[in-house]
Amino acid sequence: MFMDSKKINSNELLNSIKVVLVGTTHPGNIGATARAMKNMGIVNMALVEPKEFPSDIATYRSKAAKDVLENAEVFDTLKMAISDCELVIGTSARERKVPWPILNPKDASQEVSRGSLNNKVAVVFGREDRGLTNEELGLCNLHVHIPTDPEYSSLNLSQAVQIMVYEIRSAILENEGNDGNWDVEFADNDQTERLISHMDELMQEVDFYEIDNPRKLLLRVRRFFKRSRLDVMEVNIFRGLFAAIQKKLK
Amino acid sequence: MFMDSKKINSNELLNSIKVVLVGTTHPGNIGATARAMKNMGIVNMALVEPKEFPSDIATYRSKAAKDVLENAEVFDTLKMAISDCELVIGTSARERKVPWPILNPKDASQEVSRGSLNNKVAVVFGREDRGLTNEELGLCNLHVHIPTDPEYSSLNLSQAVQIMVYEIRSAILENEGNDGNWDVEFADNDQTERLISHMDELMQEVDFYEIDNPRKLLLRVRRFFKRSRLDVMEVNIFRGLFAAIQKKLK
Repeated sequence: MFMDSKKINSNELLNSIKVVLVGTTHPGNIGATARAMKNMGIVNMALVEPKEFPSDIATYRSKAAKDVLENAEVFDTLKMAISDCELVIGTSARERKVPWPILNPKDASQEVSRGSLNNKVAVVFGREDRGLTNEELGLCNLHVHIPTDPEYSSLNLSQAVQIMVYEIRSAILENEGNDGNWDVEFADNDQTERLISHMDELMQEVDFYEIDNPRKLLLRVRRFFKRSRLDVMEVNIFRGLFAAIQKKLK
Repeated sequence: MFMDSKKINSNELLNSIKVVLVGTTHPGNIGATARAMKNMGIVNMALVEPKEFPSDIATYRSKAAKDVLENAEVFDTLKMAISDCELVIGTSARERKVPWPILNPKDASQEVSRGSLNNKVAVVFGREDRGLTNEELGLCNLHVHIPTDPEYSSLNLSQAVQIMVYEIRSAILENEGNDGNWDVEFADNDQTERLISHMDELMQEVDFYEIDNPRKLLLRVRRFFKRSRLDVMEVNIFRGLFAAIQKKLK
């Protein structure tokens, strides 16, 4: 149930993450990205075939994040840039017609947060005009798509990075609030279903259904537990309480 | 409990929102903000005493969001810019020592999403170097702080706007997925606190605490209910069930 008993250190996790920019055309975007990263405490940058780097424009736009640029690694291929990473998340500008599950930024950031506990993680962003190639996306474990207005979906590169690093930082800090005990795994579907059944059973035992429309009630309970993403410990608390109540009732 | 039975139209909601920039120094930031807004489907911009506007730099940086700039309204004071708004959210760069509750972007966006159902909403951003004055913050109903790395917290203005409009769009689309039955209001803090106390009471009554470390148990329950964002109906279901159990136990 516990992945690791030591206290989660969010800085360590943030240091396990690198942002990879592939084929960036405008050095200003590299600089703005460095700033966006550092604002969220993510400082490892890798550049794959940048058109112009190092660059005064990048340095100017990075403001106080010059160190991120100075430490940035430059690679010839994406494959080389991610060779030390166990989890690679690729950003996809469009919802492509490839049979690949596409996560939203929040869910992807949960994966990054969890992945960064024991692994190196890369978050990969493509070219300003055409994103990542299908071949590059094929090197990624997961794909993420930032939902934008379909009528004007072209996010600036550094803005896309800003959203992702913000979500990743949020996910990591959320987990940090939890001391050692919160590297609890999320409940899987089965565990959540058994919790819903248990609550259903209890509601019947105390005649709760008589006071409300039964079907809607269970539907609401189901929706609540499904969307609230319980961890295993939380499932156990609810089920333990339900069992203790049932015992008392007998 | 239900606010309105008609299906939520996210475009209508997005149109009820305006972004207000106060005292912006760099026209490039105004342009980049226009683009960031339009990417997320929010197109109403108000400018309070911009240093330079209209501006070719702003137009260039806005890319295909020139219409946002063309339709932007310019005001002499924040008070005038928000005079038609029922809900005003002010962004605060620092966690100020004023006795005012400060929301994170996700919670603030839920407020914006709910507020935009029946009201005009303004989201206000301050000057690049020193944010909003205390007087300006005093005109806002709620304050939001974007969590950044404390060691480098100065977000670029358009990046701060990007994060907020992204969160607002996400909150609105999340609610749109729900048809008529789910425009139930979210529980407020008081209601959630009462639910947690009620569960605490019940756990004591069935001697559940004896089997676990009591303080951690309640902490976990609290954390679960706080992060799962219950709606009013869900709170009522849990509390109703708890009450039914307590009645049976007597």
